[in-house]
Amino acid sequence: MTNKMWGGRFAQGPSAIMAEINASIDFDKRLYAQDIAGSKAHAAMLAKQGIITKADATAIRKGLDEVKAEIDAGKFKFSAALEDIHMNVESRLKELIGEPAGRLHTARSRNDQVITDLRLFTRDAIDQLDAGLVDLLRALAEKAEAHAATIMPGFTHLQSAQPITFGHHMLAYVEMLSRDWGRFADARKRLNENPLGSAALAGTSFPIDRAMTTKELGFKSAMRNSLDAVSARDFLLETLAAASICAIHLSRLAEEIVIWSSAQFRFVKLSDKFTTGSSIMPQKRNPDAAELVRAKPGRILGAFMALAVVMKGLPMAYAKDMQEDKQQAFDALDNLALAIAAMAGMVRDLEPNKDILRAAANSGYATATDLADWLVQNVKMPFREAHHVTGRIVALAEKKSCLLSDLSLEEMQAIHSGITKAVFKVLTVEASVASRLSLGGTAPSNVRRESKRWKKFLKGK
Amino acid sequence: MTNKMWGGRFAQGPSAIMAEINASIDFDKRLYAQDIAGSKAHAAMLAKQGIITKADATAIRKGLDEVKAEIDAGKFKFSAALEDIHMNVESRLKELIGEPAGRLHTARSRNDQVITDLRLFTRDAIDQLDAGLVDLLRALAEKAEAHAATIMPGFTHLQSAQPITFGHHMLAYVEMLSRDWGRFADARKRLNENPLGSAALAGTSFPIDRAMTTKELGFKSAMRNSLDAVSARDFLLETLAAASICAIHLSRLAEEIVIWSSAQFRFVKLSDKFTTGSSIMPQKRNPDAAELVRAKPGRILGAFMALAVVMKGLPMAYAKDMQEDKQQAFDALDNLALAIAAMAGMVRDLEPNKDILRAAANSGYATATDLADWLVQNVKMPFREAHHVTGRIVALAEKKSCLLSDLSLEEMQAIHSGITKAVFKVLTVEASVASRLSLGGTAPSNVRRESKRWKKFLKGK
Amino acid sequence: MTNKMWGGRFAQGPSAIMAEINASIDFDKRLYAQDIAGSKAHAAMLAKQGIITKADATAIRKGLDEVKAEIDAGKFKFSAALEDIHMNVESRLKELIGEPAGRLHTARSRNDQVITDLRLFTRDAIDQLDAGLVDLLRALAEKAEAHAATIMPGFTHLQSAQPITFGHHMLAYVEMLSRDWGRFADARKRLNENPLGSAALAGTSFPIDRAMTTKELGFKSAMRNSLDAVSARDFLLETLAAASICAIHLSRLAEEIVIWSSAQFRFVKLSDKFTTGSSIMPQKRNPDAAELVRAKPGRILGAFMALAVVMKGLPMAYAKDMQEDKQQAFDALDNLALAIAAMAGMVRDLEPNKDILRAAANSGYATATDLADWLVQNVKMPFREAHHVTGRIVALAEKKSCLLSDLSLEEMQAIHSGITKAVFKVLTVEASVASRLSLGGTAPSNVRRESKRWKKFLKGK
Amino acid sequence: MTNKMWGGRFAQGPSAIMAEINASIDFDKRLYAQDIAGSKAHAAMLAKQGIITKADATAIRKGLDEVKAEIDAGKFKFSAALEDIHMNVESRLKELIGEPAGRLHTARSRNDQVITDLRLFTRDAIDQLDAGLVDLLRALAEKAEAHAATIMPGFTHLQSAQPITFGHHMLAYVEMLSRDWGRFADARKRLNENPLGSAALAGTSFPIDRAMTTKELGFKSAMRNSLDAVSARDFLLETLAAASICAIHLSRLAEEIVIWSSAQFRFVKLSDKFTTGSSIMPQKRNPDAAELVRAKPGRILGAFMALAVVMKGLPMAYAKDMQEDKQQAFDALDNLALAIAAMAGMVRDLEPNKDILRAAANSGYATATDLADWLVQNVKMPFREAHHVTGRIVALAEKKSCLLSDLSLEEMQAIHSGITKAVFKVLTVEASVASRLSLGGTAPSNVRRESKRWKKFLKGK
Repeated sequence: MTNKMWGGRFAQGPSAIMAEINASIDFDKRLYAQDIAGSKAHAAMLAKQGIITKADATAIRKGLDEVKAEIDAGKFKFSAALEDIHMNVESRLKELIGEPAGRLHTARSRNDQVITDLRLFTRDAIDQLDAGLVDLLRALAEKAEAHAATIMPGFTHLQSAQPITFGHHMLAYVEMLSRDWGRFADARKRLNENPLGSAALAGTSFPIDRAMTTKELGFKSAMRNSLDAVSARDFLLETLAAASICAIHLSRLAEEIVIWSSAQFRFVKLSDKFTTGSSIMPQKRNPDAAELVRAKPGRILGAFMALAVVMKGLPMAYAKDMQEDKQQAFDALDNLALAIAAMAGMVRDLEPNKDILRAAANSGYATATDLADWLVQNVKMPFREAHHVTGRIVALAEKKSCLLSDLSLEEMQAIHSGITKAVFKVLTVEASVASRLSLGGTAPSNVRRESKRWKKFLKGK
Repeated sequence: MTNKMWGGRFAQGPSAIMAEINASIDFDKRLYAQDIAGSKAHAAMLAKQGIITKADATAIRKGLDEVKAEIDAGKFKFSAALEDIHMNVESRLKELIGEPAGRLHTARSRNDQVITDLRLFTRDAIDQLDAGLVDLLRALAEKAEAHAATIMPGFTHLQSAQPITFGHHMLAYVEMLSRDWGRFADARKRLNENPLGSAALAGTSFPIDRAMTTKELGFKSAMRNSLDAVSARDFLLETLAAASICAIHLSRLAEEIVIWSSAQFRFVKLSDKFTTGSSIMPQKRNPDAAELVRAKPGRILGAFMALAVVMKGLPMAYAKDMQEDKQQAFDALDNLALAIAAMAGMVRDLEPNKDILRAAANSGYATATDLADWLVQNVKMPFREAHHVTGRIVALAEKKSCLLSDLSLEEMQAIHSGITKAVFKVLTVEASVASRLSLGGTAPSNVRRESKRWKKFLKGK
Repeated sequence: MTNKMWGGRFAQGPSAIMAEINASIDFDKRLYAQDIAGSKAHAAMLAKQGIITKADATAIRKGLDEVKAEIDAGKFKFSAALEDIHMNVESRLKELIGEPAGRLHTARSRNDQVITDLRLFTRDAIDQLDAGLVDLLRALAEKAEAHAATIMPGFTHLQSAQPITFGHHMLAYVEMLSRDWGRFADARKRLNENPLGSAALAGTSFPIDRAMTTKELGFKSAMRNSLDAVSARDFLLETLAAASICAIHLSRLAEEIVIWSSAQFRFVKLSDKFTTGSSIMPQKRNPDAAELVRAKPGRILGAFMALAVVMKGLPMAYAKDMQEDKQQAFDALDNLALAIAAMAGMVRDLEPNKDILRAAANSGYATATDLADWLVQNVKMPFREAHHVTGRIVALAEKKSCLLSDLSLEEMQAIHSGITKAVFKVLTVEASVASRLSLGGTAPSNVRRESKRWKKFLKGK
Repeated sequence: MTNKMWGGRFAQGPSAIMAEINASIDFDKRLYAQDIAGSKAHAAMLAKQGIITKADATAIRKGLDEVKAEIDAGKFKFSAALEDIHMNVESRLKELIGEPAGRLHTARSRNDQVITDLRLFTRDAIDQLDAGLVDLLRALAEKAEAHAATIMPGFTHLQSAQPITFGHHMLAYVEMLSRDWGRFADARKRLNENPLGSAALAGTSFPIDRAMTTKELGFKSAMRNSLDAVSARDFLLETLAAASICAIHLSRLAEEIVIWSSAQFRFVKLSDKFTTGSSIMPQKRNPDAAELVRAKPGRILGAFMALAVVMKGLPMAYAKDMQEDKQQAFDALDNLALAIAAMAGMVRDLEPNKDILRAAANSGYATATDLADWLVQNVKMPFREAHHVTGRIVALAEKKSCLLSDLSLEEMQAIHSGITKAVFKVLTVEASVASRLSLGGTAPSNVRRESKRWKKFLKGK
């Protein structure tokens, strides 16, 4: 079949394999709303500038609305012979409104059309991710507030190091995800520039008004170099990098949920909403959703890498290689949105098992650091010496198989005479976390204050 | 909606987000043929071993054929509530044959079912890639033979270094792609092991005969550790790595085709079959297919990376993370097959422009190395000294703006008296390539012999 | 050998393989300046808060200066037995000043020390990259201004599409690299938070003043969650992602330089400063520097990917996995700095070959689009019809083997009677570029204005 | 400083930045042994073919031995001005033996020299990895044999699914790593081809004997296309892909060791040899080595990706981009060797905690599947019905808070009358694993047989 767009110059149609590798309509049809919005803005501008008549512009805009309604309603017949969304829309427009459709493409090219669509799409996707992130941040901040004083072990190397609070742990993710949120905001700001009006690559001699389309399409400003406008994909790479980093953050919490849900940890319990089970093994609560969230960085990093490989060493301006950008973007951003939503659901759903968490925090002489710090602060010994004394006291407790707080004052004084009964105030896990009042520390009062601060901050979003 | 498979233990159904993130039927339905083949082999084995009756096995196998026919014909209704291809098939089987369907799942689990399907699929995909590669290798070998004596510049740093033949250049890709072919063959051999019979992860107490399913499914042998069988994805990583390397090879030739098709190079011409044009710029022959092939390593490497990220640090045995493997595999292997086919088409289609290629080879004193080598061989000067003399002769030709072969014997002798008229035999590009008779060298006679050797080798494939 | 730091609890020293895999001093010694700066700030704060005496703080700070002087001078003996830079510095400090050295580690841990060092290092590295980018932007803006009217072909698919100016092409890279610059600025802003004071992971009970160390170390604010502070590496991932994108931009220009330097293109000439040659082939000007810049995205993307893989699914808080972050960061940021510097040198060095560029721009009916646009604007025909008429005129020129501007008015009018002699004003490449006056278009006046704007903007940086 | 190699043609020396980006001696000096071996083989061949005299060849080979001895002894002064290892060696050779050194480079070029070095290096590195893998496989097989009957929970989703044996778990890694071993063997076979004799890219007119150098350097055969020989890097990509996959396997076991070492799991205990501790928290046994092994896939995948990005779309033949290959190869292969050695040490070191493992396996109704299978086999009910009955029995046990084996026969018969006392034979974890006798199943007898088979197989390696 002869491709309609290239006119009569090509004696033969493209071979079947060429048609298959070349057509993009299967995936770029997803850009129809953005494509039509761009065309509507372009038509209005052409009319305002006197490049087409107002009547033509009105016909075009009305026709485009009709096309969009057809696609919205699932009634549009996409044609692979028309290759891409741009030609599918224009071709249908021509059927609907006739000759004026032929004027729409004045002073623009598919090159700036495709990039306009993709920037609008990415902006929309970021807006949806932001909404998802705000919801997740809320879920985390609420869980943090509810568990501001729930004690759990703070791990290094998956070994209990010091007691912390569950709320503090949740707030760590609030911090990480709020930076992700900031990265998306920065990416959005940077990409929100209007490429439309760059034409094929050199700009145009028509007296277009790029400020007008910039405004109508909600862009911040017009891109200032036509070659750059049609060639650059850094906006997408930046967005995919931000998505990758966000997905990595989610995967860290997901891994924790998987570990915490094990029969050995039992730190938290997820309900049936986010687990699957076995018809014959009632104890099985497979954290499938957490595992899937843990896995998502794979495909999102893969998408980033895919686009990076495509763009590396690609000369100016447009090359067909760039057609590979869309599927990666769609898949990565869809999956991140899904992962964020699933995580918000899990955070709300999970119930910390307070008794088990406290017992875990209380094992392993987790307040040894508190004892050492007490010695430094109260007995005024240098840090390294305090550690030595602490080591001996811990060894005694270990020998007696008791907690540090179960030792008698005399036993401790036998090791260092400067120890007073005031030491007992720092040896419990409650005392330990309560004492971590330094800015950013795990003290319940800190956690409460930070949770409130975040909830307030998120209220307006 | 309550998920049917987990039985009554879960009071609530999974939340909507869970259903969305968890279901795989949208993509794993592609495995239906493999899934049904695996089930048929399993049923036959169960009957032979007396675990189910022969009548049940016959009913099951007949029913499965019916299910397959329905799917082949596009009449099957896939259900997202049934989550995956395994349950969709089994559920329909039950509708078709009733009670015996409930015996099919004896002595197996979804875990070994999914991995059996995926190994069968990957094996099939490799077989298709191999066929594509053989066709491409043939196209290259034929083009090489046809252009065994077509002279072109051999580049280093995209600068002409020495004359070579176009056929020699084609054969370089034959070598690369034949190694790709070997990698796929090795991957196929290594993956062609039967996981079926591993059950959930521990094997089974049923007296199954894994040798029988191994044989029926065309596997080489049965996997010898059930835990490994359900947990490993190295076979897919290896296949995707081989695919990535192959795609990189194709991208190198694609880049050359793009450069060679430029107005500045005009080394080759692609027909309308593999180019797109502009309705108003007749000279434009955009090598879209070559650009798309050049871009394909992006998504294929992305798929490898995606799966690698998923598998990194994943504990035994099955985890839901692994569900992310399929889409990556499908996309990467489909796209490689497409790229191979497009490249075979382009290789057959492209016509080298002999005059331009020879002229390019003849410029830049490309036979200076031949002169230096002649001095070493005939005047017996050390290599480094011969280079010095050659440098002076080239400088003279440069000053006179002529080719080396245009200098007179006297002019050369003025620089070194040992030079004789025999030197002229090595100064033309034809002489140069003809002299490269070392094994692997570019001499037309070598190229002809190698082309024939490859064509013969490929005949039986 | 027994490791000194873990005290006497470990009966056996770590095995040789453990020592080899565990030690980081070989690479983290590079952080010595940051480590010492952090320790000095910490000591001053401890004294101000009364946690240590002023005398101790003075001794510590003086001692640390001495340690730094020794390392600066290359006289410091690094010890693998002391594992890392932190212990190497502290151990030497103890030798120099004795007991007060033991008080330095009060109210902090290696966990917050290592992350403080790495944030300071990354901030420093970004500052150096920024300086390099500013220099490169200047080089590009100057080259753009100098060649605001130098005509060259604008390519799509490496096929000449429309005439542009060399300056416009340079400015495209100014736009891209200025966004890279913005990305680094955003990354710097986001990472410039003080983790010091987070202690092991939970904060501390000592009355530390994090605002003070924040100020002394030039951080914007203190991190608000101790767990996040020691666990997060998103700041490094973001920086490496920005570096990857920047390297991709550089690789695109590098690829162009390689192609432009070929004998077939001869669009630009690089001097001996940035090429290597052959002792016997004078025409060879191998663009080695451009090739190396083109290759750099490999290792930089590799570093991003490496760190992403490490961080994916890593539970809170510190895990030894994170030790893998530093070498990747060092290698990637060093290589990007080198690539930026090399590119700045090449941009200044390269000389466009105006005659060849213009001739290339003038071939292939590159002003066909101008003709079509003229028909739309002046003969008022719809865009698609204008393309049809243009196609016929081009076909005539092609048949006559002449430029569009060489056709007579009569010949054109024979194809469409509405054409007037005014058409000739748009058919030359000079007219074509001059007419692209739309914002962002390639018109020399636009290029001049933009170059000036950028030069002015860069002046203050 | 003028570069000596390019002779006098370049008026200016390369700029400082060019020198810095271009020189490779800092890293390629590591190839000195391979470079000298290649040169010795080349010299011997040149003499045998009468291209140089036997006396020259003897002088060259003796001189090269001397150079190697100097480098071995750390006495060689590497010069950055001489750029790379090839020129450093040749330059020193000239100092040592004078004029004959100038004949060594006859009939070869740096292009085939560098690739010969790199193939030899990669082959050597694979041989070392193979030795490491054999040692690790032995450690795993021995541990498997020692714990053929040590019962532990088999996990899916980190939830206990069925009892398995610790030996079975170890053997799963034997299977994975033996496939890695096979991949390296395949890569070695494929790369063990001789590129030497390809000269710059076109072969040579000298009557060289490539079979002779092939034999002397231990290659299997000579590469049959000179262009391919100097351009291909698939051998390195394949090796790095195999290394990546192997590192992923190691990371999975490493993750398990980290989880198993936690206070919550306590499945295994690592000694001081492979853990670090805290001077004041005696229970802390940080599994640093396991964490570092878990992290290693990062940099190894990063290296693969780096080289893939470099090679993608790179035209024939040699381009300077390829210089980026070596550091990636060195770093990745070194780190994999280290990770393998560390894992072998950990596997030998780790002690499974039998009581805890058995208790974990015995919880959660892990033999419910055995009960269901017993019902199918003995009461002849369909699989799906057996699951229903099992679910009811498990619910009863759950209600009574007892193990399945603690229920009375009457209680079970009340649920299904077909149950007999024979059922108790399958309800203990010991019975469960013992019954998994299917090929590849976890039965201790299987594990013992497989362990022995592997140990026997490994004996000869």
